Amino acid sequence: MAGPNELMAAIAEVGVDRRRGGYSRHVFDDAERQLREWFTEQAEARGLRVEADRNTNIWAWWGEPGDDAVVTGSHLDSVPGGGAFDGPLGVVSALSAVDLLRARDFQPRRPLAVVVFAEEEGGRFGVPCLGSRLLAGTIDRDRALALRDPDGVTLAEAVRSFGADPARLGCDEEALRRIGQFVELHVEQGRGLVDLDRPVAVASSILAHGRWRFRFHGQGNHAGATLIGDRRDPMLPASRLVLEARRVAAGTEGGRATVGRLVPNPGGTNVIPSTVDVWLDARSPEDRSTRAMVTELSALAREFAAAEGCDVAVTEESYGDTVHFDTAFRDQLSGLLDGAPALPTGAGHDAGVLAAEVPAAMLFVRNPTGISHAPEEHAEPDDCESGAQALARVLEHLAG
Amino acid sequence: MAGPNELMAAIAEVGVDRRRGGYSRHVFDDAERQLREWFTEQAEARGLRVEADRNTNIWAWWGEPGDDAVVTGSHLDSVPGGGAFDGPLGVVSALSAVDLLRARDFQPRRPLAVVVFAEEEGGRFGVPCLGSRLLAGTIDRDRALALRDPDGVTLAEAVRSFGADPARLGCDEEALRRIGQFVELHVEQGRGLVDLDRPVAVASSILAHGRWRFRFHGQGNHAGATLIGDRRDPMLPASRLVLEARRVAAGTEGGRATVGRLVPNPGGTNVIPSTVDVWLDARSPEDRSTRAMVTELSALAREFAAAEGCDVAVTEESYGDTVHFDTAFRDQLSGLLDGAPALPTGAGHDAGVLAAEVPAAMLFVRNPTGISHAPEEHAEPDDCESGAQALARVLEHLAG
Repeated sequence: MAGPNELMAAIAEVGVDRRRGGYSRHVFDDAERQLREWFTEQAEARGLRVEADRNTNIWAWWGEPGDDAVVTGSHLDSVPGGGAFDGPLGVVSALSAVDLLRARDFQPRRPLAVVVFAEEEGGRFGVPCLGSRLLAGTIDRDRALALRDPDGVTLAEAVRSFGADPARLGCDEEALRRIGQFVELHVEQGRGLVDLDRPVAVASSILAHGRWRFRFHGQGNHAGATLIGDRRDPMLPASRLVLEARRVAAGTEGGRATVGRLVPNPGGTNVIPSTVDVWLDARSPEDRSTRAMVTELSALAREFAAAEGCDVAVTEESYGDTVHFDTAFRDQLSGLLDGAPALPTGAGHDAGVLAAEVPAAMLFVRNPTGISHAPEEHAEPDDCESGAQALARVLEHLAG
Repeated sequence: MAGPNELMAAIAEVGVDRRRGGYSRHVFDDAERQLREWFTEQAEARGLRVEADRNTNIWAWWGEPGDDAVVTGSHLDSVPGGGAFDGPLGVVSALSAVDLLRARDFQPRRPLAVVVFAEEEGGRFGVPCLGSRLLAGTIDRDRALALRDPDGVTLAEAVRSFGADPARLGCDEEALRRIGQFVELHVEQGRGLVDLDRPVAVASSILAHGRWRFRFHGQGNHAGATLIGDRRDPMLPASRLVLEARRVAAGTEGGRATVGRLVPNPGGTNVIPSTVDVWLDARSPEDRSTRAMVTELSALAREFAAAEGCDVAVTEESYGDTVHFDTAFRDQLSGLLDGAPALPTGAGHDAGVLAAEVPAAMLFVRNPTGISHAPEEHAEPDDCESGAQALARVLEHLAG
């Protein structure tokens, strides 16, 4: 029997990123494999039956796997240099909730499973919630298999190296059918609960969000020998795009636009780049306004590129429409949890992907810094404990 | 006996960069070590006596090493994704010139050496002409030893791994005293010779130039969950700096300013970076105007950072004042070479570092594209042959 804080402490050294700070745990890398093994051991020690699905997500079953199961879980991967809680808190709270229910001699009347989804952050292959999207069939499997990591390795190759069969990837109707209801616990990625002075909330909605890659193409050349007037430097339109993304988002109700990844090629100090890749993360409450931001920014990018004698290619790497979590399910959970408040989030989640297919809900645990995807992300031990207790209460009610 | 084109062909496969295009050959990496071995074999096959100096530069001597030598050579490292000719053309032309002189039964009356300088591009440790700066004592040895590559390896560690003694690095008065005159042949990094319809030029001057790192520091956070008004995103001031660098350079007589390397940390698509490093390469004909550009841009960077709730630290990574090559020496070479025209260059060179210590000159070979530090860099075989012949004539005259 272990509480969430004990379980978090057990993995605190895995994937520490000394260079960037925080944690870097990317799908199939050493750290993520260690976490998979650790999860498997923990689940088996609890008598759960562990199996990988066709898309390398891991399932730990309490009782016989079967349809109409109550499923909880989250992910173990991180963004580069991310916080400790985003993902793992949901997984350790699920294990801890199993312990709490066992301690009460609870016997689930429906199958109950803890799931760990693969590549939720898209930190390696660029598409967030890749494991749940593949399972739900909301990403084309051939497109997914051809995704490349920054070293040029395809997902197909990475899956094969991991020891799984890339031919089996894709929509998994059996796994999907088994999910009767899905509940994901997650650290809050904002200060909603701080402002409300509460430890736990339920999720109301997720912004419409996606990722677009802008590849600006110019002429690589010598930084000293090339006159200013002779340049076709893709760093110029790339930088203008960054500034316009801020302006456009600020002018969009609830809009967010971010460039957190920008890669000049070849990347030498004394070299005018030949190309610059800019990844735009754009979000807003509505599909239409998110699309409008990207349309406007794409037009501006073309204008900026042309002004510098460059061109630009825009590729949509991922997209997820606005998620409104099932109101009745959400209210049911809130009722079980002393009227836990409902909060929207700007972050994407596997629960958001699954919400289009099955009843899905989320619990948020207070984050005193409000910061996420950074080492300052935090949750107090008491709040983590409250989260696990809340999740146990929900599972008990749903599966009892 | 081998011409420069044959010798270039022999190393055409070493350090090919399939990802970036062009060549990536950085000090002490596999490709650069292969080139060092290849050079050593070639020099020894010509009966030259090969030795490394205290700063890992390689010297190949025709006759006894001694003072007042005629020295020629260049470098074998490249920028990331660079062209084939920048550096290697000067080395292969030197070997080829030795062959041409031998074929004429030439006997040098002064010591003659071919030198390969280490880390001319600063592609690994950030300081260009590091081998010649160390030799000449124009960089503090302790500062040099503490330089780090992008993986955090110090120069001291890299030198030790290479098998040399970091304690011996630094001003090498004996090596310096031996250089009576230095002549470096180099591919032109512009279209001066194309416009003049000539194959070979002599160098007149090098711009005052340097590298500065701007580290913008903000607050890493979640790209979706962080409201625009709550952000302290260092990518914003970094992008404004890129645009201002262009404006300031365009307003400076003969000015150039380039951002070819920009690294957000941690670099995730769905992550507001905590820091962004921007490397500024700034150059102009005069020390004063180069300094003025950097002063203005530093002030703007602080203003832009403050406007976003960020701060910025500016570090000078390298600097080289304007070089005016010795006029009499230059005119002497031009006279030997059918009145080869004198051309200025915006690019830095080991010959520029040495020019402050010893009589130094450069020969440029026509580049039909005018492009350098990129795969399109080129020199026609006939022009490479003309360059080697010109270098042989110069060496014959100086050492005869």
